[in-house]
Amino acid sequence: MKINVVFNKEIPAYSDILEKLEEILIKRHIEFQSFDIDNMQKNGDFTFVIGGDGTLLKSARFYAGTPVLGINLGRLGFLAQAGADEIERAVDTVLNGKYSTEERIMLESGSSLALNDFVIKGCMSSRTSKFYLEINDKFVCDYIADGLIISTPTGSTAYGLSAGGPVLYPSLEALVIVPVCPHTLNARPLVVPSEEKITIKTSDKLLSVAADGLDTTECVKEISIKKSAKKALLAFINDDSFYSVLRNKLHWGISPDLK
Amino acid sequence: MKINVVFNKEIPAYSDILEKLEEILIKRHIEFQSFDIDNMQKNGDFTFVIGGDGTLLKSARFYAGTPVLGINLGRLGFLAQAGADEIERAVDTVLNGKYSTEERIMLESGSSLALNDFVIKGCMSSRTSKFYLEINDKFVCDYIADGLIISTPTGSTAYGLSAGGPVLYPSLEALVIVPVCPHTLNARPLVVPSEEKITIKTSDKLLSVAADGLDTTECVKEISIKKSAKKALLAFINDDSFYSVLRNKLHWGISPDLK
Amino acid sequence: MKINVVFNKEIPAYSDILEKLEEILIKRHIEFQSFDIDNMQKNGDFTFVIGGDGTLLKSARFYAGTPVLGINLGRLGFLAQAGADEIERAVDTVLNGKYSTEERIMLESGSSLALNDFVIKGCMSSRTSKFYLEINDKFVCDYIADGLIISTPTGSTAYGLSAGGPVLYPSLEALVIVPVCPHTLNARPLVVPSEEKITIKTSDKLLSVAADGLDTTECVKEISIKKSAKKALLAFINDDSFYSVLRNKLHWGISPDLK
Amino acid sequence: MKINVVFNKEIPAYSDILEKLEEILIKRHIEFQSFDIDNMQKNGDFTFVIGGDGTLLKSARFYAGTPVLGINLGRLGFLAQAGADEIERAVDTVLNGKYSTEERIMLESGSSLALNDFVIKGCMSSRTSKFYLEINDKFVCDYIADGLIISTPTGSTAYGLSAGGPVLYPSLEALVIVPVCPHTLNARPLVVPSEEKITIKTSDKLLSVAADGLDTTECVKEISIKKSAKKALLAFINDDSFYSVLRNKLHWGISPDLK
Repeated sequence: MKINVVFNKEIPAYSDILEKLEEILIKRHIEFQSFDIDNMQKNGDFTFVIGGDGTLLKSARFYAGTPVLGINLGRLGFLAQAGADEIERAVDTVLNGKYSTEERIMLESGSSLALNDFVIKGCMSSRTSKFYLEINDKFVCDYIADGLIISTPTGSTAYGLSAGGPVLYPSLEALVIVPVCPHTLNARPLVVPSEEKITIKTSDKLLSVAADGLDTTECVKEISIKKSAKKALLAFINDDSFYSVLRNKLHWGISPDLK
Repeated sequence: MKINVVFNKEIPAYSDILEKLEEILIKRHIEFQSFDIDNMQKNGDFTFVIGGDGTLLKSARFYAGTPVLGINLGRLGFLAQAGADEIERAVDTVLNGKYSTEERIMLESGSSLALNDFVIKGCMSSRTSKFYLEINDKFVCDYIADGLIISTPTGSTAYGLSAGGPVLYPSLEALVIVPVCPHTLNARPLVVPSEEKITIKTSDKLLSVAADGLDTTECVKEISIKKSAKKALLAFINDDSFYSVLRNKLHWGISPDLK
Repeated sequence: MKINVVFNKEIPAYSDILEKLEEILIKRHIEFQSFDIDNMQKNGDFTFVIGGDGTLLKSARFYAGTPVLGINLGRLGFLAQAGADEIERAVDTVLNGKYSTEERIMLESGSSLALNDFVIKGCMSSRTSKFYLEINDKFVCDYIADGLIISTPTGSTAYGLSAGGPVLYPSLEALVIVPVCPHTLNARPLVVPSEEKITIKTSDKLLSVAADGLDTTECVKEISIKKSAKKALLAFINDDSFYSVLRNKLHWGISPDLK
Repeated sequence: MKINVVFNKEIPAYSDILEKLEEILIKRHIEFQSFDIDNMQKNGDFTFVIGGDGTLLKSARFYAGTPVLGINLGRLGFLAQAGADEIERAVDTVLNGKYSTEERIMLESGSSLALNDFVIKGCMSSRTSKFYLEINDKFVCDYIADGLIISTPTGSTAYGLSAGGPVLYPSLEALVIVPVCPHTLNARPLVVPSEEKITIKTSDKLLSVAADGLDTTECVKEISIKKSAKKALLAFINDDSFYSVLRNKLHWGISPDLK
């Protein structure tokens, strides 16, 4: 087994955790290589990622198809599941093969890949744009809106949730299209099968496109998004269900009266 | 080919449409039997239904697995697709086998079947109840709420939409769980795979259960809901896509500024 | 100064708190009388209420115009502001006149009074009814919905919030009309001046009316609601602002990422 | 009586309407001056505005305190109330003094004036920023969000509605604070008295500020917004109530089932 270790220098305590993780790997005589998040290489069979959900998103896209385990700092992430205080157990669980994995669908558009979402907005600074939505080359509707979010189940707890979208169970073979501040009351989030090809066009302006929060391209007139053949593979060492993460992170269903 | 004709006497103009439909079937020498919605029998291979979405819901459940075509009165329904003014064309399209069909998942709980949704509320008149939600016997969360809606994609444009839920594409293998007036800000609609078993329990009170808007049972302490082996089979003679129905019926995406 | 003490026997620990409060009042040589929530009498100039927000709602309506201070059990209420552990300080603050008060508008319809809200639903068990809304005898719109909530600012953090309404600052001279599960996308909460007369009619069915969660009347065809000349007068011994209550009770504005 | 006529050259049919309006004014021997929207001068007692809601917003701010009547093209505006086909009647109604007016509150921040809203976003392109909200110098909460909208009742049917805000009756002495895509479930629109001073600060980034959709300032660290002493004065020649505009423009309360 060959291990990749990815770290993000912008995480304040990254060097302590990195050092500790490397010590443990050396003690266990495991071959590994460490990479800064901006200089990842594909070398190993399994990747430890030190950082928050943003760092993990990038690593999971890059190491698509091989398991990625996020180690984060104190607070539970939706993606990063091992705490900084359980590194030794995490390493041993991985070495013993006792971890579980979850395949997550990703979206692609040209060479861009997204594990969370594609966000399409107007290219100019102006607040609203007109978006024509097609699904499988069939016209769905126009939106005059600040933007459109095309989100995977994984991304449904991120920006899509902020914009009023539902939560999708991680393994669901579906996408959710969430308009951002639509200029109408007649629009709600739309959940469609993951096999659908989503096309967004504009008439008067150009579109900007962001994949997982990063601008991906020059401004364009049109963009098509479909499910990628690549899957992100998330590793878990705890058997926390998705629902326990909802409860712990979003206080799901907890009434203020009951606290 | 043997045809069932189902009619609902509460629809004002039902008898004219029924008469016209029967005349056409006689003229075409087609064997058929006509049933009041409250006295349906399983006799034929194809069913015409004269009525609105409510009548069609009931027929589609009863004739699960065989095609059902709704004829309604002027206004487009989500389910009933042929207008009263196109009965002759509808009959000929059906006889020529030129119609299309869509399989729709249904939910069941005990002997109750729902094409739209199960709605669980408190059994007493009191406004809110406490609901414990389990998915596949795993605890998800508690809701203090007026009720919980467990909806199919077909039902997602019905009561679930009223309660703030997303629209699910009809063929999606998913359910959506929508809390009604939850006593917390930390709850959003939750979309889960259609294979999941949904269980709702209560501590202090009993639950009332309605399938497709009809109360199904005595008050109970607990209810489990899962996808039925039976499918509703909707027939269509027009190639209106689901999205055109969204646009026509819900004015989907249409900005008030553009009218 | 003559004091009323109101208690609710359904609150588990009420008797301990009642005993403690009465001891302190005796020690301070203050004239007081204690009443069960179901047998209140108007006797004093100031009222201590032992119970949650429900008990306080009822007391504040009954003792309208004179200050009411809620003592509750551990958890912060929107209305009940003194904890069970600060009774002695509460009594002394009141006796020294160092407390602050807030006038809150109430609504009335016939002899019914509401500090939170009037909730109008269909009288029969059926899920939806048709409601005609008039404001100052001018037609506003029809709602096909589960119900309509007419809420004061005080009630805007209660049932109105569950149904998707905004929060209104307590002293705002406004009402908010929130439809419950409207059968349309074209309805949002509507905030109107508190002086407006709100009338709700129905065509096909009768209406049930609840004031502060309690059914008030026989089923009716029509109901008019207006601001009452009576004001609830809430006493506060802490200078927690309304916004700190929002933060503490509803975790207002707190991102899950920051915890 | 001296009349101003304001026109917007970007409105396709402006010149026909302008010509017609000027002819009528000449025929009636009324003194008037015509101004392009970008070169308005304060000359008259009453202003006709040829254009949509955007043109009217700008004119109403500029001619604050004197009546402004919007003439628009076919479709009903929230602000512009006379149709292009009723210009003659509009002029005569105004000359006879038979028109009604509505005072509308405006917001100001430094030298910027807004009749609809101030929208505060992050200055950089990044999606979310951290906003500290203070009301009357008291801390309310932090929002991690795309932006904050501080809207008047007039603006509550504009961008605030897109972002999930309630509708406020035009004469209400209130503001509504609507977070745009907040990074939390624990935030809802907040309606506060119009007298409150709203302050928004940021820690890590700078803020961009737009008044009625137009960027007003360099990026700033902090902005305070309060009700302006100036009022917009809208003239109406029809007695359409605000509610009829809601019904006609937003299809308020109209169920798709009833069409």
